[in-house]
Amino acid sequence: MTRPVLQFWFEFASTYSYLSAMRIEEMADKAGVAVSWHPFWLGPIFKAQGWDSSPFNLYPVKGQYMWRDMERLCAARGLPFARPDPFPQNSVLAARTAILALESDKGPEFCRAIYRSEFGEGKGISNPDGLREILVESGLPDDLVEKASEPQSKQALKDNVERAMSLGIFGAPSFIAGDELFWGDDRLEAAIAHLAQ
Amino acid sequence: MTRPVLQFWFEFASTYSYLSAMRIEEMADKAGVAVSWHPFWLGPIFKAQGWDSSPFNLYPVKGQYMWRDMERLCAARGLPFARPDPFPQNSVLAARTAILALESDKGPEFCRAIYRSEFGEGKGISNPDGLREILVESGLPDDLVEKASEPQSKQALKDNVERAMSLGIFGAPSFIAGDELFWGDDRLEAAIAHLAQ
Repeated sequence: MTRPVLQFWFEFASTYSYLSAMRIEEMADKAGVAVSWHPFWLGPIFKAQGWDSSPFNLYPVKGQYMWRDMERLCAARGLPFARPDPFPQNSVLAARTAILALESDKGPEFCRAIYRSEFGEGKGISNPDGLREILVESGLPDDLVEKASEPQSKQALKDNVERAMSLGIFGAPSFIAGDELFWGDDRLEAAIAHLAQ
Repeated sequence: MTRPVLQFWFEFASTYSYLSAMRIEEMADKAGVAVSWHPFWLGPIFKAQGWDSSPFNLYPVKGQYMWRDMERLCAARGLPFARPDPFPQNSVLAARTAILALESDKGPEFCRAIYRSEFGEGKGISNPDGLREILVESGLPDDLVEKASEPQSKQALKDNVERAMSLGIFGAPSFIAGDELFWGDDRLEAAIAHLAQ
């Protein structure tokens, strides 16, 4: 009984990725679908679109809406919500560390713990000490943070970014279900249904 | 028994506005909510964000995704779907005519007929003769197209754009439910639920 696999492409700086990270495993499991976690980095992808920051900062009216939308969605789902300062957080070290953490089955919990800290409590996620604490809480060795700065970890994140771009991914969260790309927490149900059919 | 009123802000060139236009009345009615239709024009709003065309043209990877997303959504909802050429259509005359049409209770049907022609059949919507045909089909006088070019009609569309901007609207479709702004066809359920509570 092989379960179909939904690819979950997420960015630690992304507010809507937080929403998906907190519900994807339970939803997929109910539908008999497995999840593979793919942390990536939107920096180079936004740069290719001519953006040097989050579109929610570049377009303040859209940003103002996004914060209210997140408040409403988190309230409806019983999730805590706080804005990290600055936004967006530099997510590169967190993503490199997560790639290593995801070699263990404790990886998804580490990813959720980062999101809870960042968007549930409003804490920064770029600090190595903070990431070490989260690793230990998640039952993982805290030296993954050091390993995450080695050349092969840097290359692993670059590879993820290139793979994301080759899949047509332009934002986060994104989901790959078979040959189909779905973008945004709003499409998580559809992505799972596509595989569960 | 006064029903709460959901404001529906839509742009005739917008693909996702088509989706909402085709389902909003039935959904709102089931929830005991009335709908007020507000055609506007995204041109000046996009210009204020530094865009001289649809973001789906300016960011082709996002555009490619949008067309596939629309195909899937229309198939799932049993709606016909075709791409008008060029995209986006110049929607100014259609919007000015719709403002006049919406003085009658046949206005919503006129708006839906424009969307069906544009995104169901892939026809252009900037041609006065085409709009005259749609007016007649909708039981409205075809001279509304001429009236739509008079100064007060031009001013009425400008007023709608200004009001949209003052409401924090940056894209279409958008919904105003009480003091809350909801953006996108994906938020139509939430906007109605906010009023039905």
